[in-house]
Amino acid sequence: MEVMVYIIPVLGLLALGYSFLKNNWIMKQEVGTDKMAEISRYIREGAIAFLRTEYRILIIFVIAVALILGFANAGNADSHWLIAVSFVVGAFCSALAGYLGMIAATAANVRTTNAARTGLGEALNIAFSGGAIMGMNVVGLGILGLSALFLFYRNYMDWDIPMVINVLSGFSLGASSIALFARVGGGIYTKAADVGADLAGKVYEGIPEDDPRNPATIADNVGDNVGDVAGMGADLFESYVGAIIGTMVLGAIFISPEVPELGLEAVLLPLFLAGAGIILSIAGTFFVKVKEGGDPQRALNIGEFGATGLMVVASYFIISNVLPSEWTYDGFNYTSLGVFFATIIGLAAGTSIGLVTEYYTGTDKGPVRGIANQSVTGSATNIIAGLGVGMMSTAIPILIIAASIIGAFYLSSLYGIAIAALGMLSTTGIQLAVDAYGPISDNAGGIAEMSELPKEVRERTDKLDAVGNTTAAIGKGFAIGSAALTALALFTAYKQQAEIDIINLSEPIIMGGLFIGAMLPFLFSAMAMGAVGRAAKEMIIEVGRQFREIPGLREGTAKAEYSKCVEISTRAAIREMVLPGLLAVSVPVVVGFFSKDMLAGLLAGVTSSGVLMAIFQSNAGGAWDNAKKLIESGISIDGMKYGKGSDAHKAAVVGDTVGDPFKDTSGPSLNILIKLMSVVSLVIAPLIK
Amino acid sequence: MEVMVYIIPVLGLLALGYSFLKNNWIMKQEVGTDKMAEISRYIREGAIAFLRTEYRILIIFVIAVALILGFANAGNADSHWLIAVSFVVGAFCSALAGYLGMIAATAANVRTTNAARTGLGEALNIAFSGGAIMGMNVVGLGILGLSALFLFYRNYMDWDIPMVINVLSGFSLGASSIALFARVGGGIYTKAADVGADLAGKVYEGIPEDDPRNPATIADNVGDNVGDVAGMGADLFESYVGAIIGTMVLGAIFISPEVPELGLEAVLLPLFLAGAGIILSIAGTFFVKVKEGGDPQRALNIGEFGATGLMVVASYFIISNVLPSEWTYDGFNYTSLGVFFATIIGLAAGTSIGLVTEYYTGTDKGPVRGIANQSVTGSATNIIAGLGVGMMSTAIPILIIAASIIGAFYLSSLYGIAIAALGMLSTTGIQLAVDAYGPISDNAGGIAEMSELPKEVRERTDKLDAVGNTTAAIGKGFAIGSAALTALALFTAYKQQAEIDIINLSEPIIMGGLFIGAMLPFLFSAMAMGAVGRAAKEMIIEVGRQFREIPGLREGTAKAEYSKCVEISTRAAIREMVLPGLLAVSVPVVVGFFSKDMLAGLLAGVTSSGVLMAIFQSNAGGAWDNAKKLIESGISIDGMKYGKGSDAHKAAVVGDTVGDPFKDTSGPSLNILIKLMSVVSLVIAPLIK
Repeated sequence: MEVMVYIIPVLGLLALGYSFLKNNWIMKQEVGTDKMAEISRYIREGAIAFLRTEYRILIIFVIAVALILGFANAGNADSHWLIAVSFVVGAFCSALAGYLGMIAATAANVRTTNAARTGLGEALNIAFSGGAIMGMNVVGLGILGLSALFLFYRNYMDWDIPMVINVLSGFSLGASSIALFARVGGGIYTKAADVGADLAGKVYEGIPEDDPRNPATIADNVGDNVGDVAGMGADLFESYVGAIIGTMVLGAIFISPEVPELGLEAVLLPLFLAGAGIILSIAGTFFVKVKEGGDPQRALNIGEFGATGLMVVASYFIISNVLPSEWTYDGFNYTSLGVFFATIIGLAAGTSIGLVTEYYTGTDKGPVRGIANQSVTGSATNIIAGLGVGMMSTAIPILIIAASIIGAFYLSSLYGIAIAALGMLSTTGIQLAVDAYGPISDNAGGIAEMSELPKEVRERTDKLDAVGNTTAAIGKGFAIGSAALTALALFTAYKQQAEIDIINLSEPIIMGGLFIGAMLPFLFSAMAMGAVGRAAKEMIIEVGRQFREIPGLREGTAKAEYSKCVEISTRAAIREMVLPGLLAVSVPVVVGFFSKDMLAGLLAGVTSSGVLMAIFQSNAGGAWDNAKKLIESGISIDGMKYGKGSDAHKAAVVGDTVGDPFKDTSGPSLNILIKLMSVVSLVIAPLIK
Repeated sequence: MEVMVYIIPVLGLLALGYSFLKNNWIMKQEVGTDKMAEISRYIREGAIAFLRTEYRILIIFVIAVALILGFANAGNADSHWLIAVSFVVGAFCSALAGYLGMIAATAANVRTTNAARTGLGEALNIAFSGGAIMGMNVVGLGILGLSALFLFYRNYMDWDIPMVINVLSGFSLGASSIALFARVGGGIYTKAADVGADLAGKVYEGIPEDDPRNPATIADNVGDNVGDVAGMGADLFESYVGAIIGTMVLGAIFISPEVPELGLEAVLLPLFLAGAGIILSIAGTFFVKVKEGGDPQRALNIGEFGATGLMVVASYFIISNVLPSEWTYDGFNYTSLGVFFATIIGLAAGTSIGLVTEYYTGTDKGPVRGIANQSVTGSATNIIAGLGVGMMSTAIPILIIAASIIGAFYLSSLYGIAIAALGMLSTTGIQLAVDAYGPISDNAGGIAEMSELPKEVRERTDKLDAVGNTTAAIGKGFAIGSAALTALALFTAYKQQAEIDIINLSEPIIMGGLFIGAMLPFLFSAMAMGAVGRAAKEMIIEVGRQFREIPGLREGTAKAEYSKCVEISTRAAIREMVLPGLLAVSVPVVVGFFSKDMLAGLLAGVTSSGVLMAIFQSNAGGAWDNAKKLIESGISIDGMKYGKGSDAHKAAVVGDTVGDPFKDTSGPSLNILIKLMSVVSLVIAPLIK
C-alpha cells in the first residue's frame, strides 16, 4: 500500500503541468487596444506590488515562527526540529499558489474583456481557464508539498507514522498562517479600495466607481485580484491541506495492535482521495465549454457537478479497496461503507449549505426581495432587514453542520468527521476554478468600462459574472461547511495529540475557555472592520486631494495618480493585517501553555461562534449586494416603481457598502481563523501535553 | 436557623408597603395643565391597554404550560404536580410587578414634567420615586412569592429540601416566561413605535418625533413605558428569582451526611442576603435627594453605591454568621470567607462590565467619537463603525466573565458561581429604581414637548434624563453579568438535577448541541428585528394615511388619531412575540427529551453566544445613540463643524435607528433567553434524567 504514495506527488506535478500549459495558452491570447493594455498593466503591477510587499513582511513572520518552532521542538521526544521545515514549505507553497494564481488572473482578465468584444464563448473559456490555473496550482502545490515531505520523513528519516504526522502538521500551520494574512490583508485591501472608490466618487464628485477619472478605481480592481483571487486561493489551500492532515492524524490511531487489519491505509486514504480529485477536476475543466449562444451556467454546472458526481463514484471504489471492509477499534465497529457514507454526508452538507446560501442571497428569492422592500423607507430599515436576514440565515446551515457531525460520527466515529470534511474538499481544483472565474469576469467588466469599450462588451462580461452565482454560492457552502468540519477534525486531532480524554464543560476553566473562544470572532471582526473603515477614509481623503490639486482631472483631460491610491491600500492592508494575524496565532499558544484543557474549551468556542459569525456576515453582505442589484434592475414595490437613482436605490447602496467588509473581509477571514487556531493548537500539542 | 425564614416574607411585605406609600405620595402631586393631563391620560391608557391585551394572551400560555407541568410531574417521585402552582404564582407575581410598576411610571412621568416647571429637585424626587416603586414591587413580590411557597411546601406539605426546591423551580420558570414575553413584546412595541414615528415624520412630513401632529408620537411614549419600564422590571424580576433559586439548588448538595456542619444554611443564605438587600435598598432611596442647584448624578450615585457598599458589609456578617467557617464536600474545602469573596467577585465583575459599557457607549469617549467621525462620510461608514464598536466591546466583558467564573469556582466551587450572581442582584431594589428613573424622565420630556411647555422645562427634564447615564451603564453591566452567571448557575443546577456528571465536548452529540445552542441567539435576534421592521412599516403607512385623510392635521388645526397607532403597535407586538417566545420555551424541551446531554451542550452554546450577542447589540445601539447626540451637541471633525441637520447628523440618525431594535428589543431579550432556556431545562430535569 505504502508504495502507492509515490503516485501522489506525480499527480501534484500533473496539476501543475496542466496549469502551466493553460497559462501559456492564455498568454498567447490578444490583449486588445492600447488603452486596455495600459489599464491591465496598472492592475497587474498594483497586484504584484501588493503581494511583494505583503510577502516581504510575511518572510519575517515565517522566519521568526520557524525559529521558535525549531527550537521548541528540538528537544522533544514526540516531535523534531524539522517541523520548522514543514512550516516553511507549507508557507512557501501557499504563498506561491497565491502568487501564480494572481498572475494568471491578471493576465486572464484583460484577455477576457478582449474576447468579449467578439463573443461570449471564448470569453468564458479564458475567464474559466484563468480560474483553473489557480485551482490546479492550489491542489498541485498542496499535494506535492505534503506528499514529498511525507515520503522524506517516512523513508529518508525513517520515522514512525505518529512522528511523521506530528512533524507534517507544521505544513498545515504554514499554509494556515499565510492564508490568514493573505485573507485579512487582501480583504482589507479590496474593501478599503472598493468602499473608498465608491464613497469618494459620491462624496466629492458624483463619479461612478469604475470611471477612469476616479483615482481609486485601479486600486479597486487590484483589490479584486489580491482579495478575491489570491486571498481565496490561500484560504482553500489551507482548508485542503488542513482536511488532509486532520484525517491523517485521526487515521493514525488505527495503527495499533488492536487493529491488525489496518496498517497505514487510513492514514494514506486522504492522499489517495485528494489524488483522485485532481484527476477528476482536470477532467471536469474539459467540460466547461460553451458555444456562441449557449448557456454558460450550464457549462459551469456540468464541469463542477460532473467532477463531484464522478468523485462520489471514485471515492466508493477507492475507499472499499483501500480500507478493510470492517474493523473494530476502541469498541467502535468501523466499516469501509461507513467511511464512504461519511464522505457523502460531507458532500451533501456542503451542497445543502450552498443552496441555503443561495436562497438567502439570491436576487430572485424572498429574503433579498424583503431587503429591497425595506429600502423604500430608507437606509436604516434596509440595514435592519439585512442584519436580520444574515442572522436568520445561520439557522439551517448550523442544523446541517450539527447533523453532519453527529451523522459522520455515528458512521465512522471521529475519523468520519474528518473524512466528511475531506469529501467536500477533494474536488477543490475545479471548485476553486469556478470561484476564481467570478472575480476575473468582474475585473474584465471593470476593464471594459475603464477602456470605454462599446456597451455590449460590458453586457457580455456582466452575463459571465452573473452566471457564476449558483456555483459560487455552493462554493461558499463548501468553504463554510468544510471549515467547520476541518476545524473540528483538527480540534479532535489536537485532543488526541495533547492526550486530553474528556473536555468536561462542567469545569469552569473549560467554560471560561469556551466564553473567551466564542468572543474572539467578534474581536477579530471588529478589528477587520475598523481597518477597512480607517483605510477607506484615507482613500477618500486622497481622492479629494487629487481632485483639488490636479487641474483637468474632473474634466477628464488630466490623468489621475492611480498609483497613490494603490499605495494607500497596500500600506493600510499591510499595517492592519499584522495585529489580527498575531492575535490569531498567539492566543492558542498563550492559553495552551496556561492550560491545555482551557485551550480545548477555547477551540470549541471559537469554532461554534466563528462559523456563525462567518455565515451571518457573508450572507448579510451577499443579500445587501443583491438587493441593490435587484433595485437597479427596476422593481415595483407597493405599486411604485424604483430603479437606479431612486431613494430606495440610495438606501440599498448604503447596505451594499456596509456588506462589503462583512462578506469580503471579516466574514471569510473567520473561516481561516477557526482552522488556524486549531492548527496552532495541534502543532503545540506535543509541547503542552 | 430555619425559623428565621419567617422573616423573609415580612421583608417582602415591607418592600410592598414602601412602594404603596410612595405611590400614594406620587398620586397626591399636581398633574399640571389640562393639555398635560390629556396627553398623560393617552399614554397611560395606551400602556394599560397593551398590558391587558398582552396578559390576556399570556393567560392562555400560562394555563397551558401549568396543565402540562402538572400532569407531567404528577407521577414523578422527585417532583409534584404543585410545580404548576409554583409556576402560576411566579408568572402572576412577575406580571403584577410589571403592571404595578408601569402604573406608577405613567403617573410619575407627567408629575415629573409638572415639577420641572418650577425646579429640578422635586422633579428628580418624583421621577426617582416612580422608579423606586417599580424596584420595590419587583423585589417585594419576588421574595414574598418565593418564601411563601417555600414555607408552604416545607412546613405544610412537609417535604424534604430537594423536593421543595424542585417544585419551587416552577416559580422561576413562571417568572422567566412572563419576562421573555414582556421583554420581547414590549421591545417590539417600543421600537416599532419609535422607528415608525421617527421615519414617518421624516418620510412624509419633516415633522419631529415628539411633535403632537405626528400620530405615532403617543405610541412612542407608551412604548417607553411598556418596553423600558414593564419589560425591564420583568427582566430583573426573573434574574433576581433565578439567581436565588439557582443558589438554593446548588446549596442543597451540602445537605449530606458528608457535611455534618451544614443543614439548610447554604440553601437559605440567598434568601437572607436578598432580605438584607431589601432593607438596604430602601435605606438607599432616602439618600437620593437633591436641593435646587445640586447635582442629581451625585444623589443617584450616593443612593446606589451607598446601598451596594453597605450590602458588602452586611454580606460579610450574614455569611460568616449563617455558614460554618469551613467545611468539606466532595473533596473541596469551602470557607465562609470564600463564599463572601465570591459575592465580591460578582459585584466587582458587574461594576467593571458597567464601566466598560460606559467607555464604549459614553458620549465623551473614544469609540463614540470614532463613530461620529465616521459619520462624515455617510451612513455606510457610520454603520460599519458602530458594528465594529459593538463587536469590539464584547472582549473585556467576556474576559471579566470568564475570570469571574474561574475565580468564583476556585473560591467556592459551583456554589461560588451562583453566589456571585446573587451578589450582583441583592440590591436589585435600588438598581431597578435607578434604571426605571431613566424612561420616566424621558417620558416627562416627551410630555413637556407635546404639551408645548416653555423650553426650560424640557431642558430640566433633559438634564434629569442625562444624569442617569453612568448608573444606567452600571445597571446594564449588572444585568449582563448576572444573566451570564445566573444562567451558568441554573445550568449547573440542571446538570445536578438531571444527574449529568460530565459534559464531554468530545462527544459529537454535545458538540452538535453546542452549535445549535450558539445559533439560537442569532435566530432569535433575527426574529425580533424582523418583527420591528414589519411593525414599523405598518406604522409608517398608517401615519401616511392620517396625513392624507385628516384635513388640517398638517397645519395643526386637526387632531391626529393617536389610538390607531397605539393599536397597531399593540397588535404587532402581541402577534410577533408569540413565535420567538414559544421557540425559547420549546427548544429545550424537544432537545432535552431527545438527549439530556445534547441539552447540556445546547445550554453552553446559547449562554456563551447569547451573552456575546447581547453585549454586541446593546453596546452598538448605545454607541450609535450617543454618536448622534454628540453630533447634535455640535462637534468639529477634521476642522469642519457639524451639528443638527448636517449630513453627518443625518448619517448618525440612520445609525441610531438601526441601533434601536439592537439595544431595546433583541439585545436585552437575549439576557432573558439564556436564563429562560436554563430554567426550562432545570424544570424538566427530573423528567428526563
